[in-house]
Amino acid sequence: METPEGWTRSDDALTRTYRFRDFAEAFGFLTRVALHAEKVDHHPEFFSCWNRVDFRLTSHDAGGVTERDVALAAAIDRLAAQMPPPASRKAG
Amino acid sequence: METPEGWTRSDDALTRTYRFRDFAEAFGFLTRVALHAEKVDHHPEFFSCWNRVDFRLTSHDAGGVTERDVALAAAIDRLAAQMPPPASRKAG
Amino acid sequence: METPEGWTRSDDALTRTYRFRDFAEAFGFLTRVALHAEKVDHHPEFFSCWNRVDFRLTSHDAGGVTERDVALAAAIDRLAAQMPPPASRKAG
Amino acid sequence: METPEGWTRSDDALTRTYRFRDFAEAFGFLTRVALHAEKVDHHPEFFSCWNRVDFRLTSHDAGGVTERDVALAAAIDRLAAQMPPPASRKAG
Repeated sequence: METPEGWTRSDDALTRTYRFRDFAEAFGFLTRVALHAEKVDHHPEFFSCWNRVDFRLTSHDAGGVTERDVALAAAIDRLAAQMPPPASRKAG
Repeated sequence: METPEGWTRSDDALTRTYRFRDFAEAFGFLTRVALHAEKVDHHPEFFSCWNRVDFRLTSHDAGGVTERDVALAAAIDRLAAQMPPPASRKAG
Repeated sequence: METPEGWTRSDDALTRTYRFRDFAEAFGFLTRVALHAEKVDHHPEFFSCWNRVDFRLTSHDAGGVTERDVALAAAIDRLAAQMPPPASRKAG
Repeated sequence: METPEGWTRSDDALTRTYRFRDFAEAFGFLTRVALHAEKVDHHPEFFSCWNRVDFRLTSHDAGGVTERDVALAAAIDRLAAQMPPPASRKAG
């Protein structure tokens, strides 16, 4: 299984950090991710500090990274790509 | 008081319709608007049907449109401008 | 098909109004409803004014009320029942 | 400054874990917290894993815990108390 571009593969998880302009932008993004997660019934772990969101994707039942995590990573990236252009924020 | 571009002025309110690609995009946008509304303590009325959001801005205590509504309209437009480009959705 | 208790059946839709203590409580509730709607891929129309949320449930593709709307009404009621007790807010 | 009941004081932050029934309940709660945070312009750090939310409150500009964190802890506790009763979830 290939590690999605921009994500880091540790032993048992995929991780990535996103940064936005402020808390409201970050939380609006998180809401999009939450709606998607409920739809596909696979949920990321996330840490949020002001304008930053760290994701950690793993399949607890499988004890590691599965195709569901790779698909979730792709969905998160797609939602992030719909946020204001990179010029106005910094990619994590 | 001037009616903000893109908004319609009825007797006692400013109204505007926005359309997005789907429900999730519309609700993500609404969450941004809700966070702003709590921050400034002035809240829009809104109607949502799938990918569409209709706003109605009025100052109940003043019985009509005030500068607070004009400012809220500007904030909503600013948040909408941060959504995916018009090519991928239709402006209401 | 029976009309769920507390809901009103018009020709082609189920409607119900809920009232909460304030905007934040109403929007927190709406977020729960939105997450559920994405999960089951059936979405309510809703109108929000400050602490009030009006729902209108219909199956556009079927041109009227179906079992999916009845199930969505039940889910919305279940989420509403998890909000602060009736003593602290008024049922719509 | 007293540490609020139920919170843990480390050198420079207040921390507390809340658990809910599922992801949707946890995220609905987080949305309430986010709306409050924007209103008071003081934001918690949080980590979410499925039905669990860990908060970390600190005042970055002051380099430690201030009255703003104590007030935010009280607001978070108040919102948590409005969630479904303890019988149906486990306090963290």
